[in-house]
Amino acid sequence: MSQPAYVHGYSAVEAARLADQAQTLAAILHEGVRYPAGAMVLEAGCGVGAQTARLAAASPEARFVSVDISADSLAQARRAVAEAGLGNVTFMRANLLNPPFADESFDHVFVCFVLEHLAEPLAVLRRLRRLLRPGGQITVIEGDHGSCYFHPESAEAMAVWRCLIQAQAAMGGDSLIGRRLHPLLVAAGFNDVRVRPAPIYADDSLPHMVEGFTRRTIMAMVAGVEGQAKAMGLIDDDAWRRGMTALGRAAEPGGVFNYSFFRATAYR
Amino acid sequence: MSQPAYVHGYSAVEAARLADQAQTLAAILHEGVRYPAGAMVLEAGCGVGAQTARLAAASPEARFVSVDISADSLAQARRAVAEAGLGNVTFMRANLLNPPFADESFDHVFVCFVLEHLAEPLAVLRRLRRLLRPGGQITVIEGDHGSCYFHPESAEAMAVWRCLIQAQAAMGGDSLIGRRLHPLLVAAGFNDVRVRPAPIYADDSLPHMVEGFTRRTIMAMVAGVEGQAKAMGLIDDDAWRRGMTALGRAAEPGGVFNYSFFRATAYR
Repeated sequence: MSQPAYVHGYSAVEAARLADQAQTLAAILHEGVRYPAGAMVLEAGCGVGAQTARLAAASPEARFVSVDISADSLAQARRAVAEAGLGNVTFMRANLLNPPFADESFDHVFVCFVLEHLAEPLAVLRRLRRLLRPGGQITVIEGDHGSCYFHPESAEAMAVWRCLIQAQAAMGGDSLIGRRLHPLLVAAGFNDVRVRPAPIYADDSLPHMVEGFTRRTIMAMVAGVEGQAKAMGLIDDDAWRRGMTALGRAAEPGGVFNYSFFRATAYR
Repeated sequence: MSQPAYVHGYSAVEAARLADQAQTLAAILHEGVRYPAGAMVLEAGCGVGAQTARLAAASPEARFVSVDISADSLAQARRAVAEAGLGNVTFMRANLLNPPFADESFDHVFVCFVLEHLAEPLAVLRRLRRLLRPGGQITVIEGDHGSCYFHPESAEAMAVWRCLIQAQAAMGGDSLIGRRLHPLLVAAGFNDVRVRPAPIYADDSLPHMVEGFTRRTIMAMVAGVEGQAKAMGLIDDDAWRRGMTALGRAAEPGGVFNYSFFRATAYR
C-alpha cells in the first residue's frame, strides 16, 4: 500500500526523531493534559503513537480512540502502546475529513502536529467539532516554522530552513499554522478559544535542550527533507552542505536556538 | 545640547509609547524582580524612567542609582519618580562605558532595552560586571526583532518591519540582540548565566494585548522610524503606506501578533 503524503516521511529514522521530540517536548506541551475517569478522548492523527502512550498513561481511566490515515503508522502506534502495557487505547484507521464516528461521540479531541500537514485544516476542525458533545473540549498543538531564529544567524542556514517550509507547502501543508490557530478555531465555530505560545529555547546552559531539541528534533527534521528539497530544485548539493553546517553552529558552544509551538484549547 | 543617537527618538509621543510599553509588559518582564532592604541597585540606561518608578516602588527599601547618557531623558525620569512620591532613587548622567563609580559598588545591576541600542554591548557588560560586588547579580531584558511574526503575514508588512531593524543597525545598534544574551554574558565573564524567552502574544481574545502591545508598542515603534527609513532610502512613501496598512491587519479582528523578549540573570 502506498503511504499518504507526509513531509517528514515514514522511515525508522523519522520514527526515532518523533520519539525524541515527544520525550523532550512532553513536559512543555502536555503540561496539564489530564482527562477524567470515563472520558471518551479522540486522538485525531496519532501517527506512530509518539504522543499516544504518554497521553494514555497520564489519564489511565479515560478511554482513547486514536486514529490515523496510515495503516503502517497505526501498527507502530499499536506496538508502542502494547509495550507500555496500556489497555485504554483503541486504534482505528480513519480520514479526518470523514471519520467513522457519530456526532457528539467524544468528550475531548486531541490534535498534535497534524493540522500543519493538511490541505484543509479548517474543514477538519469543523468536522472534529461535530464529534464533540456540546461543551466538549478540543486541544490543538502545532508548531510554526516562521517562529524559528537562532544564533549565529546566516543566510546559508536560513536557506536550508526555508527548504523545510517550502517542501511542506508543496505537499499541501502549512508549517506556519501555529500563529493562526486562534482565527482557525473561531472560524470552525469553537467557543472560548484560548491560544498560548510554548517557546522552546536552547543554549549552552541547557544541554538537554541542545541535544534533544536543536539536534535531534530540529536538525533531524531539516535533514529529513534533503532529498525532497533537491528533487524540487529548491537547493543544490553545495548550498545544502553549507547550510547544514551553518545551522549546526546553533547547536555548538555559544549557539542559541529558538522555536515556538502553540497550544490551543476551545469548546463546542 | 544635541541628543545622543537613539533610534526611537526623544519626542513626547515616544515617551508616551515607552510608558504604554512599560505598563503592558511590566507583569511579564518584571515578574519576581525584587531587591532586598539596603541593596544598592544600578539601573544602567534608565531613559525617561519608564521602568524606574515601577522598580523603585516594588523594592521600597532598596536604593537605586539610575543613570542615562541623555540629560533630557534624566529630567523626565526624575519628574516621573517624584510624581510617584518615591525617595529611593538617585539620578546621574553617565556613559556606560565610563561610569563614575568605584568597582564593586553595587549589589545588583538592572539593564532593560539598552544593550540593543549600543555599538559595544560586550564592552558595556564587562564594565558593568566590574561595578558588581563578587556574587552580585545582573538582570538584562532585551527584545529581538527577528522574533516577530504575525497573521496575516505579507511582504508589505515585513518591509516596514525590516525598516525598524535596519534603522537601528544604521545607528550602531542590534535589534536582534535578545537571542545572543547568553553568549554575550558568558563572554563578559559572568557566571551562572540563565536566559529565558518571554513571549508576547496578542489575538482577539486578549484585547488589552492587541491595544497595549500590537498597536501602542509595536506599531507605534515602527511608525516612529518613518522619517528615518525614508531618509535612508529604505522605503518609499507608497510602500510605507501599504506596509503600515498590512501590518495593522495583525491588530484587527482575526489578526495575531507574536514577539519575544529575553530575560537574563547572571552573577559576578
